[in-house]
Amino acid sequence: MSKEIPYKIYLEESEMPKAWYNLRADMKKKPAPLLNPGTHQPMTAEELSVVFCDELVKQELDNDTRFYEIPEEIRNFYKMYRPAPLVRAYCLEKKLGTPAHIYYKFEGNNTSGSHKLNSAIAQAYYAKKQGLKGVTTETGAGQWGTALSMACSYFDLDCKVFMVKVSYEQKPFRREVMRTYGASVTPSPSETTEVGKKILAEHPGTTGSLGCAISEAVEVAVGTPGYRYVLGSVLNQVLLHQSVIGLETKAALDKYGIKADVVIGCAGGGSNLGGLIAPFMGEKLRGEADYQIIAVEPASCPSLTRGVYAYDFCDTGMVCPLSKMYTLGSDFIPAPNHAGGLRYHGMSTILSELYDQGLMEARSVKQTDVFEAAEQFARVEGILPAPESSHAIRVAIDEALKCKETGEAKNIVFGLTGTGYFDMVAYEKFHDGKMDDYIPTDEELAKFRARLPKVD
Amino acid sequence: MSKEIPYKIYLEESEMPKAWYNLRADMKKKPAPLLNPGTHQPMTAEELSVVFCDELVKQELDNDTRFYEIPEEIRNFYKMYRPAPLVRAYCLEKKLGTPAHIYYKFEGNNTSGSHKLNSAIAQAYYAKKQGLKGVTTETGAGQWGTALSMACSYFDLDCKVFMVKVSYEQKPFRREVMRTYGASVTPSPSETTEVGKKILAEHPGTTGSLGCAISEAVEVAVGTPGYRYVLGSVLNQVLLHQSVIGLETKAALDKYGIKADVVIGCAGGGSNLGGLIAPFMGEKLRGEADYQIIAVEPASCPSLTRGVYAYDFCDTGMVCPLSKMYTLGSDFIPAPNHAGGLRYHGMSTILSELYDQGLMEARSVKQTDVFEAAEQFARVEGILPAPESSHAIRVAIDEALKCKETGEAKNIVFGLTGTGYFDMVAYEKFHDGKMDDYIPTDEELAKFRARLPKVD
Repeated sequence: MSKEIPYKIYLEESEMPKAWYNLRADMKKKPAPLLNPGTHQPMTAEELSVVFCDELVKQELDNDTRFYEIPEEIRNFYKMYRPAPLVRAYCLEKKLGTPAHIYYKFEGNNTSGSHKLNSAIAQAYYAKKQGLKGVTTETGAGQWGTALSMACSYFDLDCKVFMVKVSYEQKPFRREVMRTYGASVTPSPSETTEVGKKILAEHPGTTGSLGCAISEAVEVAVGTPGYRYVLGSVLNQVLLHQSVIGLETKAALDKYGIKADVVIGCAGGGSNLGGLIAPFMGEKLRGEADYQIIAVEPASCPSLTRGVYAYDFCDTGMVCPLSKMYTLGSDFIPAPNHAGGLRYHGMSTILSELYDQGLMEARSVKQTDVFEAAEQFARVEGILPAPESSHAIRVAIDEALKCKETGEAKNIVFGLTGTGYFDMVAYEKFHDGKMDDYIPTDEELAKFRARLPKVD
Repeated sequence: MSKEIPYKIYLEESEMPKAWYNLRADMKKKPAPLLNPGTHQPMTAEELSVVFCDELVKQELDNDTRFYEIPEEIRNFYKMYRPAPLVRAYCLEKKLGTPAHIYYKFEGNNTSGSHKLNSAIAQAYYAKKQGLKGVTTETGAGQWGTALSMACSYFDLDCKVFMVKVSYEQKPFRREVMRTYGASVTPSPSETTEVGKKILAEHPGTTGSLGCAISEAVEVAVGTPGYRYVLGSVLNQVLLHQSVIGLETKAALDKYGIKADVVIGCAGGGSNLGGLIAPFMGEKLRGEADYQIIAVEPASCPSLTRGVYAYDFCDTGMVCPLSKMYTLGSDFIPAPNHAGGLRYHGMSTILSELYDQGLMEARSVKQTDVFEAAEQFARVEGILPAPESSHAIRVAIDEALKCKETGEAKNIVFGLTGTGYFDMVAYEKFHDGKMDDYIPTDEELAKFRARLPKVD
C-alpha cells in the first residue's frame, strides 16, 4: 500500500545526500577529455591548476570515482536552503485534466534564485581550503554570479564577477544583490583586461556575451596571484556537485515508492540537467532501470538539436581549453530578444556524450510557448518560474497532455531550477505581445560552424 | 534530553494548524469596536457587509470564538507553500558570538514574497464562496497586491488593485508579477474614482499614499455589483488568518522542547506581528507563560512609539469606519525616502489595545541601522530580507548582542516576513550612502494629531 503523497516531499536533514555521485564512473564510453588549444593534447592536471583549484582539477579529470564525500562545511551550508522540496503538482494536474502525476524539484528557495548555489558553495569551499584570496567568474542572466557572491561571502573570499554588458545594464537589481554579498561586478567586455580591450576594438559597442566574459574572467584569474577561475556550468566538476539535485529527487521518490517514467530538465550548459538526471541515468547505464530523459533547450540557441558534436572553444577569446561537445560555434550569440539564460553556445561534454549515445532525447522550444507555460504554471502552482526553468515546464505540460490523450498515468518529473523575480522585463514583453520567436536559419548556423577549430 | 535542533524545522503536513486562533477570545479587555464615521455608533454587521464579505464580517466582529476551523480548500492552498520553516540562525549566532539561540520563522518562500498570502487566500476563498465576481484592494510596497493576485487567480476571481502611484512607477516589476496572475493594476490616486479625482484636484502631482489607495478601492468595491473590498493588514480578520504563522512557530518550538524568551516582529499595520505573537500572547493572557514581546517599527512612521491611542480614520478619503488605534493621523505620510512597507499611519486595534495594556513593548529603528542588519544577515544566513522584515532582524541582533554582554542564552524568535528581491533600489541607495534617516519632528506629528476626529 502506498503512502498518501504530500504536496511537498521534504527529506529530513539526516536523509540528505552525504556524497556527490560522479556519473562518469558508470559510463562505459567516457566523455572526451579537454584539449590544450595549442598542442591538441589532453589537458594535464598541472596545466588546469593554473586556472582552477587543485581539488576541482582532480574532480574534473576523475572519470572513475563513483562517489565524492561532501565535506561537512558544505553540508552545513546546504542545510541553510536544502533539502529542496519535491513538489507534487496537484493543481497543475487538475488544471490540465491529465491522468499523469507531475512532480517538480524546486531549487529556487534561496537568494540566488536557482540551483547554481549547489556548485558555487563547493567551488568557494575548495578555493578557501587552498588558501586562495579570491575567485573570478562570469555571469549572464545573473543566477550564477549571485550564487557565487553568496558562497564567497560565506567563506570570506573576494569575488570578481564579469557580467555580460547587456545584462549588467538591463538587470541592475541582479548587480545590486551581488554587491549586497560584497562582490565586485564589472560589465563585460571591459577595458580592465587585454582580451576585453581587443574585443572592444574589434566590435565597438558590443553588448557582450558569455563567451567574452569567460575570457576576461580567466585572464584575471590567471594573472592575479592567489586567484582562480570558477564556472557555473558545462564542466564535469559542476555536474558532480549538482548531482545533489538528482540524489535528493531520487531519495524523495523512493521514500514514497514512486518510479519516475519521464525526467525532464532545461539545458543551457547542462548544470541542472546533468545534476537532476545523474542517478536516473546511472541506473540506466548499469541496466537497472529505464527512464525517458528529455533535455529542453531554447529554439534560439539549439546546441543539442541543431549543433554538431565536435571539439570547440569554451570561450570567445579562445583562451580556454577545447572541449568536445554539441556546439553552435564559440562565436554564436543568440538573438538579443532571447530572455534569460540558456544562451551558451555549447553543452556539457558528459551530456553531449550521453546524447550522442542515444541515452537521452533533446527538444527545442519556442520562447512564447515557454512563457505561456510559465504563466499557466504560475497561476495554479503559485511559484513564478524563471524563464530557464520554464523550458522544462513547457515539455512537462506537453507530456502530461499526451497522457491525457492516451490515458496513461505516467510519473513525470522535472527540474524547476529557479524563480523569475529578476526576469519581469521578459514577462512584460510577453504580456505586451512584444516577444518574438527568432530562430537561427540553417545558413546562419552553417556560418558559425565553418569556424570550428580543426582537431584530428 | 533535548533532540538535536536542525537548521530548519519543517512540520509535517499533518502537523499544520487546522484552525486559526482568535486572540481576542482571551483578551479580558476587548479591542475597541469600529465606529460608523457619521453616527459614531459601533458598525453593525449589516453596515460592514456592504464593504466586506459576510463571513469576513462575522470574523471581524467576533471577539469570543477561540478557534476558527480553516476550510479544507484553504488548507490545500497552504500546502503549496506551507509549512514555512522555522530556521535556527546558527550562522548568525556564530558571527555575532552570542550565547543566545536565534530562530526565525521564514515566510518568504512563496511568489508574493511575504506572509501576506496567508490572509489573501482566506479572503479570496470567502469572496468566491459568497458568489462574488471579484475584489478590490490597495497595495503600497506591493507584497499584498501580489499575494491577492495569486489568491484570486487560484479561485478565478477578478482582482482590481490600486497601487500607490510612487510604487507603481518605481516598482514596475511588482506590477508585472500582478499582471502575470491576471490582476488589473491602477496607479493611485486615479481619475477612475470620485475620491481619486478629488484628491488629485486638491493635491495635483501627488505620488499617492496607502490611505488614498484604500479610499479608491473601497469606492469601487461599494459601487460595483458583485465586488467587495479586501485589506491586507490592520483588521481583526487579518490577524486571525495570520495566526497560522504563530501557531506553526509554536508547534515547531514545542516539537523540540524550546521555550521562547523573546518574540520579535516588525509592525506596519500589524498583520505579521499579530499573527506571529498570537499563541504566545494567548498564553500570557491566560497566565500560563510569560514572554517578552517586541514590536519594531520604522522611526520614520512611529505609530506605537510616538502616536496617540485614539479613534481615527483608516483612510485618507475618510470613507472608512473609525478605528481606535495608535495613530499618527490619517493624513500622515512618511518621508518619501522611507523604503519598503510599514508606512501605514495607524496600527491594528488588537495590537494597540495589547500595547496600551503593557503586554508588549515597541521600539522604533532608523532606516540605515535596519539595512546594516539586513546586509549582515544576508551575508551569513543567505536569505536576502525585505526591508520590512529587517526591522525585526535589527532588534533580534540587538537583543542577541545584549545576551553576549550578560552571558544569557536566551531563545530569541523573530518573524522574517519576506524577501527583498523587489527592493533592490533601496539596497542600492544604502550601498551608495544615499539613504537618509529622516524622522518626523514633534511639531510635525502635533500638526497631524490636531486633525484627529473628535469622538466622545
